[in-house]
Amino acid sequence: MHTVSENKCFGGMQGVYTHHSEATGCEMTFGLFLPEEAAQGPVPLLWYLSGLTCTHENAMVKAGAQKWAAEHGIALCFPDTSPRGAHVANDDAYDLGQGAGFYVNATQEPWAPHFRMWDYIADELPRIVTAAFDIDEDRQSITGHSMGGHGALTLAMLLPGRFRSVSAFAPIAQPSQSDWGRKQLTAYLGADENNWLDHDATHLMTRVGFDGEVLIDQGSDDQFLDLLRPEALAAAMAARRQPGVFRMQAGYDHSYFFVSTFMPDHIAFNAEALWR
Amino acid sequence: MHTVSENKCFGGMQGVYTHHSEATGCEMTFGLFLPEEAAQGPVPLLWYLSGLTCTHENAMVKAGAQKWAAEHGIALCFPDTSPRGAHVANDDAYDLGQGAGFYVNATQEPWAPHFRMWDYIADELPRIVTAAFDIDEDRQSITGHSMGGHGALTLAMLLPGRFRSVSAFAPIAQPSQSDWGRKQLTAYLGADENNWLDHDATHLMTRVGFDGEVLIDQGSDDQFLDLLRPEALAAAMAARRQPGVFRMQAGYDHSYFFVSTFMPDHIAFNAEALWR
Repeated sequence: MHTVSENKCFGGMQGVYTHHSEATGCEMTFGLFLPEEAAQGPVPLLWYLSGLTCTHENAMVKAGAQKWAAEHGIALCFPDTSPRGAHVANDDAYDLGQGAGFYVNATQEPWAPHFRMWDYIADELPRIVTAAFDIDEDRQSITGHSMGGHGALTLAMLLPGRFRSVSAFAPIAQPSQSDWGRKQLTAYLGADENNWLDHDATHLMTRVGFDGEVLIDQGSDDQFLDLLRPEALAAAMAARRQPGVFRMQAGYDHSYFFVSTFMPDHIAFNAEALWR
Repeated sequence: MHTVSENKCFGGMQGVYTHHSEATGCEMTFGLFLPEEAAQGPVPLLWYLSGLTCTHENAMVKAGAQKWAAEHGIALCFPDTSPRGAHVANDDAYDLGQGAGFYVNATQEPWAPHFRMWDYIADELPRIVTAAFDIDEDRQSITGHSMGGHGALTLAMLLPGRFRSVSAFAPIAQPSQSDWGRKQLTAYLGADENNWLDHDATHLMTRVGFDGEVLIDQGSDDQFLDLLRPEALAAAMAARRQPGVFRMQAGYDHSYFFVSTFMPDHIAFNAEALWR
């Protein structure tokens, strides 16, 4: 693992690191914020998965999350959203290929060799982070924005016991029924829609749910409402009697101005579960 | 004035606007955050001047300032750092020309026609902002980072009565004695160092001081300490008995991780003066 940068921040340290990934077969970059308390012993960890076009950097510099993580004494991990590099398949569209991994293990060409973001986030990166830093691996939660909210919800529901809580900002809530999903799931997983079901948060909410609390924030003026399909997830949560809260925030859009506004609530929500 | 974007944020609105500037003879862009309270009547305004290479955008997306401005019910204005455009003089160096206006009115060629950032910030933009938005022009304060800290301090000291308070994050504190300053003041104002004195915060602190409270934060691990010369400003503040606080923050560097860490304090400090 190589240290790209470390900056003191809210009494803790915001680091950026690179490492070779077995899962994705390329060099990967992630950000990790450690609160001051990490110097005294293991701290809980909140994962933040980013959206389309993002790298590890967007939320790390724009979401204002470190302040609240420092207050609650928890670490934050900001992974990249896909494999990267000249030898990695790509597409001219912003929503396919590099920057658009969708947190799945691709089975189709040309994506299958590198686009294994599910394994990377579910298995490899947690091992690397918990080995290298003083993280309490029994205390993990996960959140994310847009495509990252999709990733957070699907990982949380399919890895029961791993995460104490899950939250999402404007998640892609029903990709199997949306143009933010059908295109990518076809490309990465093939045309058989049965193979998509484990990567559809609304389907998973109906089929398995989450064994903890869920918090969803969605802006009512989000320019991508038709692609996100929050109403499907809200209905599935209510039908299941899923413990948690779905909030429609009047006037907010899809930007990081929305994310940063509700970041204090999401960190507090997850920290409450992490410290319970 | 043209609206580039408006995003709801912490109950208020983060806007980005462009306008033709008489002072700089080009199109200028600025960011303005209005708290929720602006819908009910005039609100105080805190100016944030950015550093080398920055545009209106850096602090607007990376400093986490809107949260605290919303809590204190004050507006924030994020101007650009120089004139811009293909017809505007420039230099290959990151620290001269576009992105490096140093908040002076250039008298030398090729800079004189457009590089009039003093007039833009001191006169033109305040008129535009207070005319277009519900701002209480009797309640203004100013802050900034690095080159923007230099601008905030020099404007505050040379415009007595304009600003109720001034603060700075790692300001260029003595440009007349630093490689961040001598080069630019020579280029913009000419070789006669007497013409630089109004643009040297340490000199102004000795000569006139500020008619209010001053807050300065400086990271002890700032990679540019030799260029910033904080010790000169600290000495001048102490020698003058200037009301205010100079804080050396252990372990922090020059980045926005440092700025965002102490932003809550700077907003609270200026808001206290704005609401007094």
